[in-house]
Amino acid sequence: MGEISAPLRDPMSLFDVTGKVAIITGASGAFGRGCALTLASMGVKLCLASGDEQALAELSDEIEELGGQSVTIPRRPDSTEDVDAIRDTALNAFGRIDQLVIASGYNKAGFIQDQPLDEWERIMDANVRGNWLMAKSVGKWWIDNGVVGKVLMMSSVRGRHGNYSGYTGYCTSKGAIDALTRVLATEWAKYGITVNSIAPTVFRSKLTDWMWSDDEVGQATRKRSLSRIPLGRLGEVEDLMGMALYLLAPASDFCTGQIMYVDGGYTAG
Amino acid sequence: MGEISAPLRDPMSLFDVTGKVAIITGASGAFGRGCALTLASMGVKLCLASGDEQALAELSDEIEELGGQSVTIPRRPDSTEDVDAIRDTALNAFGRIDQLVIASGYNKAGFIQDQPLDEWERIMDANVRGNWLMAKSVGKWWIDNGVVGKVLMMSSVRGRHGNYSGYTGYCTSKGAIDALTRVLATEWAKYGITVNSIAPTVFRSKLTDWMWSDDEVGQATRKRSLSRIPLGRLGEVEDLMGMALYLLAPASDFCTGQIMYVDGGYTAG
Amino acid sequence: MGEISAPLRDPMSLFDVTGKVAIITGASGAFGRGCALTLASMGVKLCLASGDEQALAELSDEIEELGGQSVTIPRRPDSTEDVDAIRDTALNAFGRIDQLVIASGYNKAGFIQDQPLDEWERIMDANVRGNWLMAKSVGKWWIDNGVVGKVLMMSSVRGRHGNYSGYTGYCTSKGAIDALTRVLATEWAKYGITVNSIAPTVFRSKLTDWMWSDDEVGQATRKRSLSRIPLGRLGEVEDLMGMALYLLAPASDFCTGQIMYVDGGYTAG
Amino acid sequence: MGEISAPLRDPMSLFDVTGKVAIITGASGAFGRGCALTLASMGVKLCLASGDEQALAELSDEIEELGGQSVTIPRRPDSTEDVDAIRDTALNAFGRIDQLVIASGYNKAGFIQDQPLDEWERIMDANVRGNWLMAKSVGKWWIDNGVVGKVLMMSSVRGRHGNYSGYTGYCTSKGAIDALTRVLATEWAKYGITVNSIAPTVFRSKLTDWMWSDDEVGQATRKRSLSRIPLGRLGEVEDLMGMALYLLAPASDFCTGQIMYVDGGYTAG
Repeated sequence: MGEISAPLRDPMSLFDVTGKVAIITGASGAFGRGCALTLASMGVKLCLASGDEQALAELSDEIEELGGQSVTIPRRPDSTEDVDAIRDTALNAFGRIDQLVIASGYNKAGFIQDQPLDEWERIMDANVRGNWLMAKSVGKWWIDNGVVGKVLMMSSVRGRHGNYSGYTGYCTSKGAIDALTRVLATEWAKYGITVNSIAPTVFRSKLTDWMWSDDEVGQATRKRSLSRIPLGRLGEVEDLMGMALYLLAPASDFCTGQIMYVDGGYTAG
Repeated sequence: MGEISAPLRDPMSLFDVTGKVAIITGASGAFGRGCALTLASMGVKLCLASGDEQALAELSDEIEELGGQSVTIPRRPDSTEDVDAIRDTALNAFGRIDQLVIASGYNKAGFIQDQPLDEWERIMDANVRGNWLMAKSVGKWWIDNGVVGKVLMMSSVRGRHGNYSGYTGYCTSKGAIDALTRVLATEWAKYGITVNSIAPTVFRSKLTDWMWSDDEVGQATRKRSLSRIPLGRLGEVEDLMGMALYLLAPASDFCTGQIMYVDGGYTAG
Repeated sequence: MGEISAPLRDPMSLFDVTGKVAIITGASGAFGRGCALTLASMGVKLCLASGDEQALAELSDEIEELGGQSVTIPRRPDSTEDVDAIRDTALNAFGRIDQLVIASGYNKAGFIQDQPLDEWERIMDANVRGNWLMAKSVGKWWIDNGVVGKVLMMSSVRGRHGNYSGYTGYCTSKGAIDALTRVLATEWAKYGITVNSIAPTVFRSKLTDWMWSDDEVGQATRKRSLSRIPLGRLGEVEDLMGMALYLLAPASDFCTGQIMYVDGGYTAG
Repeated sequence: MGEISAPLRDPMSLFDVTGKVAIITGASGAFGRGCALTLASMGVKLCLASGDEQALAELSDEIEELGGQSVTIPRRPDSTEDVDAIRDTALNAFGRIDQLVIASGYNKAGFIQDQPLDEWERIMDANVRGNWLMAKSVGKWWIDNGVVGKVLMMSSVRGRHGNYSGYTGYCTSKGAIDALTRVLATEWAKYGITVNSIAPTVFRSKLTDWMWSDDEVGQATRKRSLSRIPLGRLGEVEDLMGMALYLLAPASDFCTGQIMYVDGGYTAG
């Protein structure tokens, strides 16, 4: 036995992110908003990006209510111009960037034989190209400025498991994110930058709250989903926040290239 | 114990593909050519697609030498028009399609912070969108005509492992293929169609044969690659043909959605 | 393009195992018998081990009917003495060993809080220790005699997926087999020996044929199992034979350390 | 947007474990001690088990220094009697158990063809049977008393990757733990109990600190290990504590059956 080191005396220091600066894309979605409020509560300054200006304004008010600071930009990471504008909004407001949460995304179900190419491409572009562009823009700034940042992306159990519902866009895009997580982690490890993803099963959001409804379709879909979730319920954004915080805090400095499933046991069962 | 069933009496019947019709994209590449010659030797009629007309002509001659039949089309699966033309070339020549081997692909290394978007998109389009389009076109014909086809795609150990060499395009595209394999397998299982991928490590091809060279770069690269391959050598196309045949033959009728690593033990070590 | 190599001209040569010698443990089970008849049909000489002497005698007759050769030994791989006796039976009869199929195993369901330790140990010993002992005994002979052998073990989708039915023995033993496959493959790669496993979902055997019955329990269990199998049916031993043959033939000389799922798409969906 | 929920206002509450009671086996090892001090600092009362009485006494003093409470028992989880004694020590001291950390284990390298059976069995028993017994004993108490507990086990990158160094015991035991994690998580999900494992690469402990030495063997081994770790260093126990705490805190209530790699990117690269 030796000395008791500082983290063992004060484990909460491993989660200390006070004064950090984060970019969050897709900030108006359930996961993006959850991260925004969590990080604001932890003293992180936020640059919030989304295509939904009204939601951004409301979120900004919520953050102010929590005593946090934020700046908003009504863009999605669709082009080099967009991602550079998002990056520069953060830099102009706060002078630096420490964390990048890429929570923007899109889905539209359709069986492959019927789905138009442009619909499939829209899913892939929103869920993969947007991540690549956003990471490239912020990563370049990190490398040029010697900043050791952290990236958090959104995967899904669908990156590992197929689906019957017309998901050749969504599943494929999430498999791509899983591999992007691993290759970026490997490529940027020499800079100390960590890159990880969180992979939920269905969790409550504006897009999914019909699955909590008691109408026939809601009940049937929920029953089918629950048949694969050992813990017996669908997710809530709050279920994901502990892991999100871990992946953005010093606690995860030796953890990179991982897809972290917080899925009620879906992938285990 | 019971009766001895026909496959147990004649196991080679599980690999009987005589008279089947296959489309092979990327037929001029090492894997595409290997599949073409293997299938031709097994009595499969071939529709060979590639952007390299001269290589197609040479391959066509080789197939004739083996006593096989083939038709060629100088196209890559870049657009709906391309993939439909490839499909129709097979249908016009042979009246049906049983097997789809998507062996076309592309790579160009570049660190993400430096790689231009269009270069990354070219990798993703060649390695993912081309597969999606080709599978969609042939799959629709299968479903409309009640044909129980088999799809074989090319993944790589890079879909599961990151890389230090500027591979945010290649790795990401192969992770996408892994998930596309699983979701297509799931979506088309009700038609009995199987969808699988083969995942090699480095194997000898026009693109990689410099790694067999004894110059300094060849030696160093080979040494680095070999440090991860327990069996102690790089691959040859012939190493992949047994698995490719398995995945295209009746032997694999109950096997779908799998990424089959034939990699010298890379993923195991 | 270059010469057309021999395997591309004659792909069936990749599956040529004529004159090889195989040990099969658990030879009286459905998978063991399937392998025995398949290999006998392909000209392999067999040493069949099992605790069920009557079944061994019947299997021996079936092999004779196929024109094959076999020797039997009524032992399970339970101890060093057992496995050495099995190995020596093969060596005495045929002078060599080329293939080792470890198809013996055991299961008994029981929730962990209720299952007695000795019951759990019996599962682990039959499914893991027996494999370790058998591989050790034959592997030592291979290494000492410079023979490049092939090992085929039985895993299951249960090595990768948990279960609700009291399977802390069975699942754990199969996860152990998956890792044993990888480590043995790595450790023995320098000798050229390949080690792989096949991982089925439920397939028809004496232990499972009640699941094909139309009584209430059979129907309910079958329905529940089928809900996870995209291809919509349970397996038959014949479904596994193509992969088993691949893993025992020259076709797989560059493939090692893999768990090959032939599972109707279970792990993909 | 809706109300801001309590966890979003106070994310640290997700990691609040004050007043909980934990059992830690292998408490004298580096990981066990790390967990003990971390949990003590967070207000958890501890039952510490280990075969090393002196180390237990020292650890007990350290915990007192931190203002924590602990009780010790000089046993390893080798038999039903041992695990019940460990469980009862916790219950007698604190009246309940909330967390079970199974950090005991053993390894001894040896190539399979040379390793005696009893050496291999000792590894398997310490690393697998001990976990099964300990989980069974505490789990039964949880189920009988309606307590929603959390289990944390130790896996390793070696559960997923083979090794050249004579690890058919260690790798196999860790693959077994991975599957045990998944099946226990599935089996106990209906009680709300979560079961997860943490999987490190080499981290500093009494058993591994020679790898930090600058003698020839230390340097060579370290170099070889580092060639597989993208982040470019070996681990420290402090690297693992954030994840360990996550898996024992309310933050992970929807996360079960997972193997969490905190490995410097080993499994990603």
